[in-house]
Amino acid sequence: MPAPPGVAYINREFVPIENAKISVLDWGFLHSDATYDVVHVWKGRFFRLDAHIDRFLESAKRIHLSLPVGRTELERILAECTARSGHDDAYVEMILTRGVSSAFSRDPRDAVNQLICFAIPFGWILKPEQREEGLLVAISDIQRIPAESVDPRVKNYHWLDFVMGLYDAFERGAGSVILKDGSGNLTEGPGFNIFVVKDGRIATPDRGVLEGITRRTVLEIAGELDIRVEQRTVSAEDLLGADEAFATSTAGGVMPVTRVNGSSVADGKMGPITKQLIETYWAKHSDPSWSVGVSEVLSR
Amino acid sequence: MPAPPGVAYINREFVPIENAKISVLDWGFLHSDATYDVVHVWKGRFFRLDAHIDRFLESAKRIHLSLPVGRTELERILAECTARSGHDDAYVEMILTRGVSSAFSRDPRDAVNQLICFAIPFGWILKPEQREEGLLVAISDIQRIPAESVDPRVKNYHWLDFVMGLYDAFERGAGSVILKDGSGNLTEGPGFNIFVVKDGRIATPDRGVLEGITRRTVLEIAGELDIRVEQRTVSAEDLLGADEAFATSTAGGVMPVTRVNGSSVADGKMGPITKQLIETYWAKHSDPSWSVGVSEVLSR
Repeated sequence: MPAPPGVAYINREFVPIENAKISVLDWGFLHSDATYDVVHVWKGRFFRLDAHIDRFLESAKRIHLSLPVGRTELERILAECTARSGHDDAYVEMILTRGVSSAFSRDPRDAVNQLICFAIPFGWILKPEQREEGLLVAISDIQRIPAESVDPRVKNYHWLDFVMGLYDAFERGAGSVILKDGSGNLTEGPGFNIFVVKDGRIATPDRGVLEGITRRTVLEIAGELDIRVEQRTVSAEDLLGADEAFATSTAGGVMPVTRVNGSSVADGKMGPITKQLIETYWAKHSDPSWSVGVSEVLSR
Repeated sequence: MPAPPGVAYINREFVPIENAKISVLDWGFLHSDATYDVVHVWKGRFFRLDAHIDRFLESAKRIHLSLPVGRTELERILAECTARSGHDDAYVEMILTRGVSSAFSRDPRDAVNQLICFAIPFGWILKPEQREEGLLVAISDIQRIPAESVDPRVKNYHWLDFVMGLYDAFERGAGSVILKDGSGNLTEGPGFNIFVVKDGRIATPDRGVLEGITRRTVLEIAGELDIRVEQRTVSAEDLLGADEAFATSTAGGVMPVTRVNGSSVADGKMGPITKQLIETYWAKHSDPSWSVGVSEVLSR
């Protein structure tokens, strides 16, 4: 299969993405024993690099993984992958796996943790023609893996619930899915958080979800714009009866959600608050307080 | 890190295990979107190969993966990995991943499913000196990923709950862990099912667990030996108050569990029913109804 053009850092070397391969014995593969983060580069600038690195380091610590390089070196590696890839708009992933353990030992403490980074073209959850039209989602009966099992603050690759939810959604004519928790409240979709807007107020689920950086960005932007935001339980009824709905992800930013379970959200068009948030979100990409040039990171 | 000596089948080629590598863009890694099975070879004979292949094919179907080869060809690949590895006692894993999708598409239907197999030396959950002494386990408060999120009948790599449970167990002086479900009942450990024996009767959890082939083997052997077995909910109290306890896994067969949460199970020694099951389990390995020679599979 043709890989997207890109550059990876693996085994302490920079290689074309198609040559970036891990051992099948790496527990990051065999037990999905890994954490990761994705930061994006827009017009040559990392967006909220610090926030992504903070979360990555925190995730690693929570699952007893040790980064083999320091923070500054990690930032340089991400910048170098991006610069070498030649992409001005890039999707930059950092992964820390448990690694391979000598003689296939089952003790995770025996493994040598492995850092992998790569930069590929900026990826959108929505195809270009869908960005105005919005995301068509289905709410699945499959439950998101609960916090009691896997800490959702640790960004992780345990996605079989999402993948099965996606197949469920495809069968129902939707393009993506939102999973519920054990109490029937909405959690999140594959790679995105969800927001509803009602009577000028925004709400987003407060538990059992990844604390997305784009989610946080929206909460902060809404504060600046004097839009009231609540982090609380959000039900399927809240979404079905919303004035507007949108999803947030590093892979696409703020994206309108216009259909749920085959029905339109309000009039089925992107709403004014969603539009305002999208504009503000992208405008922030050149703000030096939230972004840093790839070349600046390289010259540090 | 030195890999265990072995042979893998990947990209339609047989290679030394240290050269068996998958793309970092394979969704089997990036989303743990994969299923697998492990069969073992003992003295040159596969044990219950049919049962493992049946389960593997069923798992693949449940998560919409297509095996790129037929069943007979799969069996030949597993046999060839084993024969080429030179191991008489081998741990033989078959893996089917979602694969890489062109241009990093998020649609799982765009990916080309990938088969990987490998044979390495037979692996034991318990080290040799522990096989008589038994497994020391802790019961963790971390919950096993529930069936409502990920179908436990699909053998999968979502192990962060187990890995965090293991770290929890290590801190408490135990060597492995058993996770509970949302109702507080026991489920399973990392790679093994659990059984308790009380007043000559055996019980094992009936839900939220992998339907292990070794578990099934014990249920069948117990039937032959006229030992009464129940599949039901099993509580922590059942385990703490058991006359005997044991774990079952392809990686080690039937293994005594002699300490739980720092306390001995009964007198802390392997019990008579456990001993009888271990002996019968290993005796079955030369029975042609449950085993087949590696060379026989190759000559089919």
